[in-house]
Amino acid sequence: MPITKQSIPKGFCFSAAEAAVKAPGRKDIALIFSEVPAVAAGVFTTNKIKAAPVKLDIANISSGKAQAIIVNSGNANACTGRQGFKDAKETIEVTAKHLGIDSKLVYVSSTGVIGRAMPMERIKKAIPLLAKALSRDSLDDVAKAIMTTDTFPKIFFKTISINGKTGNIAAIAKGAGMISPNMATMLCFILTDIAVEQKALQEALRNAVDISFNRLTIDSDMSTNDTVLVMANGMLGNAPLKKNSPYYSKFEKALSDTAYNLSKMIALDGEGATKLIIVRVKRAKTSKDAEIIARAIANSPLVKTAIYGNDPNWGRIIAAIGYSGIDVIEEKIGITINNVKIVKGGLGIPLNKNSRGIFSKKEVVIEVDIGTGKNEAEILTCDLTEEYIKVNASYTT
Amino acid sequence: MPITKQSIPKGFCFSAAEAAVKAPGRKDIALIFSEVPAVAAGVFTTNKIKAAPVKLDIANISSGKAQAIIVNSGNANACTGRQGFKDAKETIEVTAKHLGIDSKLVYVSSTGVIGRAMPMERIKKAIPLLAKALSRDSLDDVAKAIMTTDTFPKIFFKTISINGKTGNIAAIAKGAGMISPNMATMLCFILTDIAVEQKALQEALRNAVDISFNRLTIDSDMSTNDTVLVMANGMLGNAPLKKNSPYYSKFEKALSDTAYNLSKMIALDGEGATKLIIVRVKRAKTSKDAEIIARAIANSPLVKTAIYGNDPNWGRIIAAIGYSGIDVIEEKIGITINNVKIVKGGLGIPLNKNSRGIFSKKEVVIEVDIGTGKNEAEILTCDLTEEYIKVNASYTT
Repeated sequence: MPITKQSIPKGFCFSAAEAAVKAPGRKDIALIFSEVPAVAAGVFTTNKIKAAPVKLDIANISSGKAQAIIVNSGNANACTGRQGFKDAKETIEVTAKHLGIDSKLVYVSSTGVIGRAMPMERIKKAIPLLAKALSRDSLDDVAKAIMTTDTFPKIFFKTISINGKTGNIAAIAKGAGMISPNMATMLCFILTDIAVEQKALQEALRNAVDISFNRLTIDSDMSTNDTVLVMANGMLGNAPLKKNSPYYSKFEKALSDTAYNLSKMIALDGEGATKLIIVRVKRAKTSKDAEIIARAIANSPLVKTAIYGNDPNWGRIIAAIGYSGIDVIEEKIGITINNVKIVKGGLGIPLNKNSRGIFSKKEVVIEVDIGTGKNEAEILTCDLTEEYIKVNASYTT
Repeated sequence: MPITKQSIPKGFCFSAAEAAVKAPGRKDIALIFSEVPAVAAGVFTTNKIKAAPVKLDIANISSGKAQAIIVNSGNANACTGRQGFKDAKETIEVTAKHLGIDSKLVYVSSTGVIGRAMPMERIKKAIPLLAKALSRDSLDDVAKAIMTTDTFPKIFFKTISINGKTGNIAAIAKGAGMISPNMATMLCFILTDIAVEQKALQEALRNAVDISFNRLTIDSDMSTNDTVLVMANGMLGNAPLKKNSPYYSKFEKALSDTAYNLSKMIALDGEGATKLIIVRVKRAKTSKDAEIIARAIANSPLVKTAIYGNDPNWGRIIAAIGYSGIDVIEEKIGITINNVKIVKGGLGIPLNKNSRGIFSKKEVVIEVDIGTGKNEAEILTCDLTEEYIKVNASYTT
């Protein structure tokens, strides 16, 4: 979908600039601004080691309000101690000053190298430029500025009709590795002009994240900076959605759809990835069981390398099911890959011309039938390639 | 240590032959035999999907006795259903017949491709040849015959003095991947002429495995065939060791030392590995906490690729500590690599000429000080390289 002013939620504007956070040569700092204070909700990394910006945002989000997000790539501001905390606070304050708003309405996100001091002089110089350059046309610049080892910007639009009016959702994300080379983070910012009450927004976001970003694994590494922020500025003029509003479930579905589509883009753009892998586990005793099994398969380096190499090696899938820790009955397990049945009753179906090529598609759907219950779960991931090693082995040296 | 008849525990003999289990061209089936029935103990994979030979061995080991082990590489006999079970049983029976012993004293191990039928005709032809060829000199042939993607055979000898007599331990193992390319398995066979009571032997083995093979991770994948078997034939003539015998702790230490040294060889010979990595976590609240943190670091593809690339990127280590799930205090964490301190109080120490090269040695010891308790744990692993991907991406195709 081409970006048009019409697709952008009312009242939001954007800018990006070069602060040479890690190195010069690209726009690496960006600003998202809403004309009016928005209802806000957030979900953050569960890593015990949290970057300074994440700690500040977690404190801020308790107000349920946001008007601006200042975000940089190139430096995660993680493991930077008291100085890092001071730097993140100063970034917020300088941004608030140049926007003429309360600093409590400003959120800060960082992604990049862990353990290095922020180049505050260059950041403080960039902020007034960002404030001046705000425009309705620059969302794609922001999506590009937050990239680290991402190979393409990740943008998704969704509209839903509420009482005859068109409500807009626009969202951007960055991924690459859970922690990319020396860099931290999955970041996602979701913006909408639909009015939503804060509690309902937080719950819708939590549900959306649970079936999308929380079901995504590139390399089983979890970052110190993962952040998903949603701003709903209400400029559509609808009555704020509550959990029992007639349009709430429609909104929740749209938000989940947005998060899921961005998750697929992140999986497809995993470091070195050549394929998107969707692991669906069905008929498990509980959905938690299904998730644990799906995660074991999706995290298996051997499964991921087999798919990379187009090697229809289902033994690795069944071994991962077995070591997931969930009680399974070998004789009941079925495996279907891109609609071709390859394991039935725990035994391999002899390969033919058709099944030999099951892993050769750009999108590989692995469906596992556990056969002991009625619950299912899905995990998104990508293949594991030499390029992942290259990208990650020698980034800073 | 060169293999001499003197190093081999009394009463054990060996043979290896070619059965072309997967392909012709190498010895891939082997026999270990004790002149007299030995006291036996075993530890097996906890994978819920167990290969047929593992199921049979688990049933057999309840007798606490063993006299022979028949082992092949090239086919794991896993996920092979009723036929696989029948084949494993027949292998035992044919071996027992040609050795003239009770089939309950024969154990079978397989390692290799999952989900393929065993070439029973060729295996049945090889067994009588193995029984005839038994010799005191052929332990190294057995160590080679059980290799899959291993690049070197793994043999370890240990002697201990018991009441003035020299007791001998000889052990062999294979590793490569937890599941190697299409192949399953870590296998280890430990043989000794020291007399040990069965209960004491089982407990000593359990302890040895807990601090060695269970602390080893190549790629976080666990096989369907992992097996460690120990045979103590008592031909040294000592009074069988019990838990309260004066020499028991010496024996237990020797067994642990044997298992630990073989584990180090397996880590160093991990698929595509160029370096041995030893992760030691100290001063955690419990040893379980220390183990979970050490495992998170050792399983992190990002830590492993950084070490491969000689990139002193400690941010990845601290991120892994944080996502391990264990409560840690960022400000108390210290990290030392090959005796060079790089993180103190959660903050990086600026790199110098010395610390920049911390990952460049063949053996990398990562010591993490959690600073909240008194307990520690160690995990062995290796780096992650392009070669791992190559070995695993296109093995069967």
